[in-house]
Amino acid sequence: MEEILNILKRTKYASSILSGESKDNKNLALRSIADLLVKEKDKILSANILDIENGRKNNMKDSLIDRLYLDSSRIKSMAGSVLSIAEDNDPIGNVEKSFYSKAGLLISKVTIPIGTIGIIYEARPNVTVDAAALCIKSSNSVILKGGKEALNSNLALVNIIREAIGKYIPEDCINYISTSDREALSFILSQRDYLDLIIPRGGAGLIKFVAGNSKVPVIETGVGNCHIYVDESADLNMAENIIINAKTQRPGVCNAMETLLVHKNIADKFLPSLGKKLSDKNVEIRGCEKTVSILKYAKLADEEDYYKEFLDLILAVKVVDSIEDAIAHIQKYTTNHSEAIITNDYKNSKLFISSINSSAVYVNASTRFTDGGEFGFGAEIGISTQKLHARGPMGLKELTSYKYVILGNGEIR
Amino acid sequence: MEEILNILKRTKYASSILSGESKDNKNLALRSIADLLVKEKDKILSANILDIENGRKNNMKDSLIDRLYLDSSRIKSMAGSVLSIAEDNDPIGNVEKSFYSKAGLLISKVTIPIGTIGIIYEARPNVTVDAAALCIKSSNSVILKGGKEALNSNLALVNIIREAIGKYIPEDCINYISTSDREALSFILSQRDYLDLIIPRGGAGLIKFVAGNSKVPVIETGVGNCHIYVDESADLNMAENIIINAKTQRPGVCNAMETLLVHKNIADKFLPSLGKKLSDKNVEIRGCEKTVSILKYAKLADEEDYYKEFLDLILAVKVVDSIEDAIAHIQKYTTNHSEAIITNDYKNSKLFISSINSSAVYVNASTRFTDGGEFGFGAEIGISTQKLHARGPMGLKELTSYKYVILGNGEIR
Repeated sequence: MEEILNILKRTKYASSILSGESKDNKNLALRSIADLLVKEKDKILSANILDIENGRKNNMKDSLIDRLYLDSSRIKSMAGSVLSIAEDNDPIGNVEKSFYSKAGLLISKVTIPIGTIGIIYEARPNVTVDAAALCIKSSNSVILKGGKEALNSNLALVNIIREAIGKYIPEDCINYISTSDREALSFILSQRDYLDLIIPRGGAGLIKFVAGNSKVPVIETGVGNCHIYVDESADLNMAENIIINAKTQRPGVCNAMETLLVHKNIADKFLPSLGKKLSDKNVEIRGCEKTVSILKYAKLADEEDYYKEFLDLILAVKVVDSIEDAIAHIQKYTTNHSEAIITNDYKNSKLFISSINSSAVYVNASTRFTDGGEFGFGAEIGISTQKLHARGPMGLKELTSYKYVILGNGEIR
Repeated sequence: MEEILNILKRTKYASSILSGESKDNKNLALRSIADLLVKEKDKILSANILDIENGRKNNMKDSLIDRLYLDSSRIKSMAGSVLSIAEDNDPIGNVEKSFYSKAGLLISKVTIPIGTIGIIYEARPNVTVDAAALCIKSSNSVILKGGKEALNSNLALVNIIREAIGKYIPEDCINYISTSDREALSFILSQRDYLDLIIPRGGAGLIKFVAGNSKVPVIETGVGNCHIYVDESADLNMAENIIINAKTQRPGVCNAMETLLVHKNIADKFLPSLGKKLSDKNVEIRGCEKTVSILKYAKLADEEDYYKEFLDLILAVKVVDSIEDAIAHIQKYTTNHSEAIITNDYKNSKLFISSINSSAVYVNASTRFTDGGEFGFGAEIGISTQKLHARGPMGLKELTSYKYVILGNGEIR
């Protein structure tokens, strides 16, 4: 733990220097990262091969191997994201509002960095690069702790990033913690003096552990048990397209749909055709009794299925009696990520919007749009599903805090 | 704990109803509180007398008795705050921004309530009323837990509030937890399923305990070790007025100054006259060696004094070699509340503003202005000194979260 504490201290000290760095230096550091990632790609690839081989040896699932795997084009795309973050507007030192108080003071609300941020994530090397770049741009120093399955890749990437930035900003703005036991994680989560924020990125288990054990403030991201409700009045063709898209276009991501709710008056007409198309795409259906009575090949869902984020080609289905039932179901099972209603009924669309308080509430569109890029926020550090600080896609702006600067002329109370 | 859990469950359930209530119903409930507080003032006063008698018996300090004490005019002023909260703009359902995404979706960022908020505070009955009113107006239900010294007063107030609102919104929007042991507090701090936010209001000990032990997200408020630095170039007359005001106008509040830093080149000239005026106001001075060599009657400060929020007529003083020394001192000892520089040097004012990241950074004005009313935010729930969610004076806006409402026409990715 001594070693981790030293890393934390160095990272915190670096954040005090980084907060005074110019935009130009931050952008030079980012461009230098993009350059060096491409230049040193062989180093990254040979480290990555070690991780992939270990993964295969340990029977890692193909979908996880795919997330871990790097090649030239993926490295180029990482470098591209870093360059586009360099091009983004600087989020620090912006005056969000400015006004005179009744006492005549000029008060300005000015964005500042959060300080030192810990990112706890799984075996996805691209998170290493994205998180480092977003934190540099927002003048935050960062402690990274990724899944042990990606350790070789992550260390190669962090070494390159540190080497790249050293000419412009302190190398210690980016540090990596290699120890992978839960004890080390718990130690990190207790360091309120050195960390201002922890962002866990990954599966529900990791996020629950971090949120339930951290003394450092946490922003919970990404667990998405996303629902789509097909109202009686829906355009069924539109509904079918949206569901196929939300379930199958990229089933492993947090904004993919997990549960379909269908109004009882259209279930007989709607489910057979939809069911066939989903089956053609290898989607397993787990339905309520009514669903199974319409789609004989569907499995019977249990209570647990309605709570699950499958992240897979599995869809829970329930036939509901009314929009109120659909809303009550969502309110019970939601993880507060993204939910959609497909409807042509104006009043129902309004009721759905006002009753559902998830981060993103859709009318007649796919839940897959909950994304920093799609929202126009640029690169994102995650999708917040909590109520404090930030909600939905978190871009650079959401990695800032603010202070009030007050200019007076001798005013007293 | 069973009973506390039941209260939490009822309060959470009430919050789901409250979030759908109209502005009008919320305002009717608030006006009804104001009416009933005045009508039932005898009940409040007789409960308060019990608390005051207990306090006297237990040798409570006069300043604490004063915070606890209620009379007709204080009750009228409580009712007045509630009415003015009713008059404020409704913070819920506001569209903060609205834009078309590149896919053609109309995305709106809309304010929503946080949910259920726990307020943990000390023996100040006015907090009971203020917190209840602010939470109702922002459609949040609230669990109150005040200091045991004010139990009778608080229960009387909460009963009146619940009776007053019942016709318009659920009584369970407001609940009070009477159990006063640390075990009960720890239990509350672990209820992530029922509480969305905890706001501790009170002394440094309470806030540290809550922030260090809560699994529910916390907003830290109020501990203010506020500094004023008098630069070499300062208008010494202005500096003196500001210091007298910031230290003595109301020494028991969080935005009162606690430490004075003086540039060495003006110390000999500035400190004798200031010291005399402070002594006339019964301010005890605890200074560095240099200070004590100038003001023979001052006590020698120890390291601890520079960390302390005295909340009393005591001032720590240090003579510094340069503005850089002053900034370094503040960065080391600050609680991130409010700091001021008194200067006529433009460059130094800029350096101070960019180097200090406390919630409120002043040039040539008293730190006493860090206040929701003075900032024009209306009533406040506290002054946040942390970096996440809200900083500085927290008004109604800071008691909200937001969701994205997305209107489409069949869009898929």
